[in-house]
Amino acid sequence: IGRPKRARRHVRTLTGYLPETDATGKEVWPKGDEKVWKAGMRGVDQDVSDITKSFVNHVQTSLARQAYNLDNLGAYQAAALSVRDSLLVNWNETQLNYTRKTPKRAYYLSLEFLMGRTLDNALLNLGLKDKYRKGIEALGFNMEDILEKERDAALGNGGLGRLAACYLDSGASQELPLWGYGLRYQYGIFQQLISPEGNQLEAPDPWLENQNPWELPRLDVTYEVRFYGQAERNQDGNGRATWTGGQEVLAVAYDVMIPGYKTKTTNNLRLWESRPKRGFDLNSFNAGNYEGAVESSNSAAAITSVLYPNDSTTFGKELRLKQQYFWTAASLQDILRRFKNTGKPIAEFPDCKILNSMASTHLSDDPSDAAIQLNDTHPTLAIPELMRILIDEEELSWDEAWKIVNNTFFYTNHTVLPEALEKWPVPLVEHVLPRHMQIIYDINLYFLQAVEKKFPGDRDRLARMSLIEEGYPKQVRMAHLACIGSRKVNGVAELHSDLVKTTILKDFVEFEGVSKFGNVTNGVTPRRWLDQCNVELSDLITKTLKVDKNVWLKDLTKLEGLLPFAENKKFREQWAAIKQRNKERLAHHVQSTLGLTVRTDAMFDVQIKRLHEYKRQTLNILGVIHRYLTLKGMSPAERKKSNRKVVFFAGKAAPAYYIAKLTIRLIVNVARVINADPDTKDYLQLYFLPDYSVSLAEVLIPASDISQHISTAGTEASGTSNMKFCLNGGLLLGTVDGANIEIAEEVGESNVFFFGHLTPAVEDLRYQHTYHPVPIEQKCPGLAKVLDQVSAGLFGDGAPYEPLLNTIRQGDYYLLTDDFDSYIAALAMVDEAYLDRDEWIKKSIRTTAKMGKFSSDRAILEYAESYWNLEPTSIA
Amino acid sequence: IGRPKRARRHVRTLTGYLPETDATGKEVWPKGDEKVWKAGMRGVDQDVSDITKSFVNHVQTSLARQAYNLDNLGAYQAAALSVRDSLLVNWNETQLNYTRKTPKRAYYLSLEFLMGRTLDNALLNLGLKDKYRKGIEALGFNMEDILEKERDAALGNGGLGRLAACYLDSGASQELPLWGYGLRYQYGIFQQLISPEGNQLEAPDPWLENQNPWELPRLDVTYEVRFYGQAERNQDGNGRATWTGGQEVLAVAYDVMIPGYKTKTTNNLRLWESRPKRGFDLNSFNAGNYEGAVESSNSAAAITSVLYPNDSTTFGKELRLKQQYFWTAASLQDILRRFKNTGKPIAEFPDCKILNSMASTHLSDDPSDAAIQLNDTHPTLAIPELMRILIDEEELSWDEAWKIVNNTFFYTNHTVLPEALEKWPVPLVEHVLPRHMQIIYDINLYFLQAVEKKFPGDRDRLARMSLIEEGYPKQVRMAHLACIGSRKVNGVAELHSDLVKTTILKDFVEFEGVSKFGNVTNGVTPRRWLDQCNVELSDLITKTLKVDKNVWLKDLTKLEGLLPFAENKKFREQWAAIKQRNKERLAHHVQSTLGLTVRTDAMFDVQIKRLHEYKRQTLNILGVIHRYLTLKGMSPAERKKSNRKVVFFAGKAAPAYYIAKLTIRLIVNVARVINADPDTKDYLQLYFLPDYSVSLAEVLIPASDISQHISTAGTEASGTSNMKFCLNGGLLLGTVDGANIEIAEEVGESNVFFFGHLTPAVEDLRYQHTYHPVPIEQKCPGLAKVLDQVSAGLFGDGAPYEPLLNTIRQGDYYLLTDDFDSYIAALAMVDEAYLDRDEWIKKSIRTTAKMGKFSSDRAILEYAESYWNLEPTSIA
Ligand SMILES: Cc1ncc(COP(=O)(O)O)c(C=O)c1O
Ligand SMILES: Cc1ncc(COP(=O)(O)O)c(C=O)c1O
Repeated sequence: IGRPKRARRHVRTLTGYLPETDATGKEVWPKGDEKVWKAGMRGVDQDVSDITKSFVNHVQTSLARQAYNLDNLGAYQAAALSVRDSLLVNWNETQLNYTRKTPKRAYYLSLEFLMGRTLDNALLNLGLKDKYRKGIEALGFNMEDILEKERDAALGNGGLGRLAACYLDSGASQELPLWGYGLRYQYGIFQQLISPEGNQLEAPDPWLENQNPWELPRLDVTYEVRFYGQAERNQDGNGRATWTGGQEVLAVAYDVMIPGYKTKTTNNLRLWESRPKRGFDLNSFNAGNYEGAVESSNSAAAITSVLYPNDSTTFGKELRLKQQYFWTAASLQDILRRFKNTGKPIAEFPDCKILNSMASTHLSDDPSDAAIQLNDTHPTLAIPELMRILIDEEELSWDEAWKIVNNTFFYTNHTVLPEALEKWPVPLVEHVLPRHMQIIYDINLYFLQAVEKKFPGDRDRLARMSLIEEGYPKQVRMAHLACIGSRKVNGVAELHSDLVKTTILKDFVEFEGVSKFGNVTNGVTPRRWLDQCNVELSDLITKTLKVDKNVWLKDLTKLEGLLPFAENKKFREQWAAIKQRNKERLAHHVQSTLGLTVRTDAMFDVQIKRLHEYKRQTLNILGVIHRYLTLKGMSPAERKKSNRKVVFFAGKAAPAYYIAKLTIRLIVNVARVINADPDTKDYLQLYFLPDYSVSLAEVLIPASDISQHISTAGTEASGTSNMKFCLNGGLLLGTVDGANIEIAEEVGESNVFFFGHLTPAVEDLRYQHTYHPVPIEQKCPGLAKVLDQVSAGLFGDGAPYEPLLNTIRQGDYYLLTDDFDSYIAALAMVDEAYLDRDEWIKKSIRTTAKMGKFSSDRAILEYAESYWNLEPTSIA
Repeated sequence: IGRPKRARRHVRTLTGYLPETDATGKEVWPKGDEKVWKAGMRGVDQDVSDITKSFVNHVQTSLARQAYNLDNLGAYQAAALSVRDSLLVNWNETQLNYTRKTPKRAYYLSLEFLMGRTLDNALLNLGLKDKYRKGIEALGFNMEDILEKERDAALGNGGLGRLAACYLDSGASQELPLWGYGLRYQYGIFQQLISPEGNQLEAPDPWLENQNPWELPRLDVTYEVRFYGQAERNQDGNGRATWTGGQEVLAVAYDVMIPGYKTKTTNNLRLWESRPKRGFDLNSFNAGNYEGAVESSNSAAAITSVLYPNDSTTFGKELRLKQQYFWTAASLQDILRRFKNTGKPIAEFPDCKILNSMASTHLSDDPSDAAIQLNDTHPTLAIPELMRILIDEEELSWDEAWKIVNNTFFYTNHTVLPEALEKWPVPLVEHVLPRHMQIIYDINLYFLQAVEKKFPGDRDRLARMSLIEEGYPKQVRMAHLACIGSRKVNGVAELHSDLVKTTILKDFVEFEGVSKFGNVTNGVTPRRWLDQCNVELSDLITKTLKVDKNVWLKDLTKLEGLLPFAENKKFREQWAAIKQRNKERLAHHVQSTLGLTVRTDAMFDVQIKRLHEYKRQTLNILGVIHRYLTLKGMSPAERKKSNRKVVFFAGKAAPAYYIAKLTIRLIVNVARVINADPDTKDYLQLYFLPDYSVSLAEVLIPASDISQHISTAGTEASGTSNMKFCLNGGLLLGTVDGANIEIAEEVGESNVFFFGHLTPAVEDLRYQHTYHPVPIEQKCPGLAKVLDQVSAGLFGDGAPYEPLLNTIRQGDYYLLTDDFDSYIAALAMVDEAYLDRDEWIKKSIRTTAKMGKFSSDRAILEYAESYWNLEPTSIA
């Protein structure tokens, strides 16, 4: 007598199955009466009446409501569910098409996807915005109010995660077979609150609380992932091992539909949720140990419960390591299952013929099946994990396996900041992933043997290049592992890619040759970051270019056609009027969310990004104080001649990042003082907008006249918000860093305000700070005075700020004392330029016109062509 | 600067809102274009083409599948989702109607609802079975296969939970405004597996794994529930207190639609899920304490994670206490919110005018708003909780509050077994619910003062009646609290209600008067337990009675019309043929789930119910062994003349109930031996069917010739499966206990096989066992021989069974030695009767014909009329 056989497993699953064909190769209708099925099948909703019908149907059924008890949130949900239905039609067709055609696929592994809101974007991409607006109005709702009800999907910290989101949009829009893989965090990045004292407080982000219409739970797509346990090397010396015991956790797939712009192609972002494998330990429960019974179930569920709220810093927590492995292991199992469905032997994954055809320029010469992009080192465990699968499970030889691994992965580096380079303590890896630690040691051994062969006797080099950093404890260097395990490595802007090659991976360039190392400058999607967030500007551009929006939004270089119009007065007036309305929209937002009144007859100066010392929000706020003191020192008549300015800050600090949090506190308290000062408040206002998010960025960016990207030279790999501002006609005040440089190359130096020391000078300046320090009063008296005012209590008790001020007075790693004077001078140039309003608008127009390069369409196509060998596949 | 005001709360919620009216009282269309809304609105699907369309639509969208990758599980899901849509239309209308008409409502608080499967029942109640069958077939699926894919909702242990489910069905069918309140356990009753040795193993029941189409998450309906903390009595001596601190947990509502049979009325079962209030403790997280951060979130979620797998025993675990309070607190908040929406002052809840009109027979004289039924003592904390709300929050006086409480609650006792009477240690209650412990002490004081007044100086009586049982630790007697806090108290069958009045609540009858104590004999819903599980029989009945099925299924006394047909030979043949096909269906089920071949040319003898010593499965299995030994002793010729018999057992044992688990082991091992014995296997087969469930009962019950309900007299309060067997024409072999007695009263003693000692004898027999024991060999040699064979290893090593056998040899609390001989004699009578097949079928027909009384419709109407003062409210 056994367990009753309730057949529980799905016989077929959603993707990867095709209709069967008859003898002539014609597809046969699988089951039931074809006519009945076809009568029920739906396409994408096209008429307003279809839309309202679907909406009302969801109100009645999915929400179980009626017209009389439907609020805006309910209306959002009904609209979203009806759009989801349409998206699913395309999504289904896209996945079926890929299964049919088996094109090569690229997989983008990213621990973060900062998607923001979806409804508006989905409507845009489906081409249904106007029809929904009409339908929603007929039903008694206002589209803007409904859109506002959507919570941001904030599964990312900042630039890296938002980049992943832009790339997915561009991948689908360019009809590339590109899937994303990530984690379904139950709590995304924390909500930022500001306490009465000005301190950042963090609250959880329960974004799934009201359910998420944009995901499709795929309870039939699950994999098991092991942690801990024992790895026993086999005795036959073939390098194989058996990994047993420990904890087994289930990964369940949630699919997020990624519609391309004006194409049927709707790609997939698969997010994994962790679950206990066996629900619940009933044996402990029976034995009366309730706590024990839920414990193992909880520890499994915990893996995907929260996004780590750190940006550009590393930590080394066991749970973070488990997140990384859980995600890479589930994704690889899924990718390999899909590959195996094609019927090819595993030794052809991704197909090693590729090695011989690498030099070829003909895409069709590449018969490979998959490319996996590692977004930063977070998914680097995919390298030893694929080795483990190929060796221990598929029983390939080490060399075969390594060849496959080496042709599968591509690694994008996102930072050269030393504190951001991931390292994992060897004892921790050994404990959590005993088999992987063995494999890493093996990889290291073979690798160092090759290095020694090329550079005999160069022991320093071996130590520098080793995957293992000596120390207590020893650490695994993930960037080294990612580099040697990948086919190509790239940085995210010209300068940054050069720095990668000349600093952190210098030895690897010498050993592996420079051709392995490349650059793909980041990009942003013009759909969200121009058309959606700045409709009026987009409409003006379409009218002016006389090019269909569908065309220029997919070929952003068309914007160049705006250049001649910079000389057209009427056009400039329209351009300026739109900027003005965007400022008013922002002012209205601040009024309605914070109850504060922003004046809109001023220059809007914006710095919005994660709080980090290297991004130097401190420089900005100290500059604001300097301006305030200067204004205070002026006569009223002098003040009248000065440039009115409103300064906006927004951004979150990592919860444990003490100095960054002090900067927020300083900004908030400076704002309190100067916004209340009758002498100056007409000339200078300052706002810290809490809880920075994609949606807030969409309101701030179109309203900006000038935005600040003022990182210490060489520290910001690229930046992408700089591109967004410029795309919306905002000028740039920045250092010669990251993508600022390429933006200036495009728009011309005369349209960008640069200041500060250059990258090559940085190392030497830091050396001077340490070995030949000059007192700040002497080196930079203007800055010293500002710091003294803060200390003296001009903005409330100065004592709490001392640790922040001391980072500048002593050591000054980020070179504020070196750059302050040129920063102030640059600000003065900005003021002067802004006062010549006509010339300013010309600069603004020229800037937008030259932003074509920074479309993420261009960037993703570079990856597709130069890295992944991926061809667009259109859904017939 | 504060938190950005994202308006997150729903402005309106689902229930409790009505359309607004204009000056003339006409309802105005709330928003948008009425025509557009109405064009999109749907009713219950009526045509096969609507049904297939809705099905295909759900396949494409909700499931994101296609015809070619749809398996039976997917087809079940699509069908269920489309039925859900129709249910929701009626559900919405019902709720709206209640809000409009504000009838008095009854609330059924039950910690268990053993619903079983829903799809078939929903189709029956909607009257759509045939249309769905056609539609599903046209789509290429088979209805039976699809129905089989549904997992049972098994949120109950046994009879008590299944009764609650039958009552909900009857409440809706009889158009009563009756809501259920329970808990949404993530894991229901465990799945029972049988190990190779015959031991019960328990596996978790992840019934929600594939999502549940029958519930509607109501994320907008949430309440906070507090645990632990401090209760400070106010200093003004008004009895009030303030309760602060501790843990706050969120209760989130999930609504399950309960459609009535052939009526639009679709009532609601609201199940609460526990969630952490603040998602996640980000402060601990920031401080690096990840485990701390998830801990509080987990301990909140744990409350509703699992149903306690105990039946008729009490335990005293903190978590169980938390479940009880969590559920009653959330339910009361919900009930009071609904009451307050009517605009009446709280002092009118449930409306104390009732006190004066209690004697009245005119329903309309009762202006009260709510009656709350306590299903057993599990929700008794509702009594001090309502006191707490009324006193501490609503600031009523103690007397006003107590009057309201006393008119609100009704208490059903389900057992007089001493081990099943709930008691909670005072220190535990004090810790978890400090304020409630104060209130219980206060109630007790006032109560005992009144007792003392009536029976001055009777200290024993005070000790017996106190809410607090002395001892180490002291314990709170929940049955006493439920009794004195309720308006009426009832038992669940005549005998049981008498026992309640003469044993456990005797003192209370003397003090409060006998009129407070009543009886409502349990019932079962004939929709599920005849029409659904035995379609052929139902059809034959309809044909024979010439009464529409809609009529007799709602007025089950109509079955009496079958009586004359007992004399009709053709009818008897049809009747017998149906029984035979039901046996074959069962045999097929056993074959396909267990791979065992059951012979169908035999009498089917069934005992299916929770494993418990008082239910005496042990008596049955020892009887089987006795029969086996007797058969072994016969010559082949003698055997040929004997009655062929197949014995079925099914039932779960509480995981910690050692003796009950040994009984399972014994059954399994006896089965192994006798089914393999060539001498006897043609005459006696034995099966233990694992994982007893509602769905399994639906297959077993219609196939039974005789079923066993053989509890020690006075121990089984009612039993309901006895009713189900008889309703399906199965005869009853039982003790003079519970509802068996009333069944015999209805069908006549000649149609029931009774045996064993009667209730009044039990106490004395037990006294004799203890004080004048007679060796078993002397008292009951037949039984002694059977026990010896077990000990001797006839069914495998006898040693493991010693503890079980010793419960009989020593003490014999459940009187097996007293009843064994009459049991064997009764079995012989059954055999003899069965051999006269024609007479047997007559008995079978007469039994079914006289089951009208046992419809749960009758029972629920008794509650409505004699307890709750509730009138049917039809949805116009
Ligand atoms: C919410 C959010 N965070 C971070 C970023 C990246 O900003 P930056 O490129 O300035 O680091 C963006 C870009 O728009 C964003 O929207
Ligand atoms: C699954 C299940 N358990 C328990 C019971 C109650 O059985 P009894 O009345 O025999 O205790 C029933 C009644 O049908 C049932 O279906």
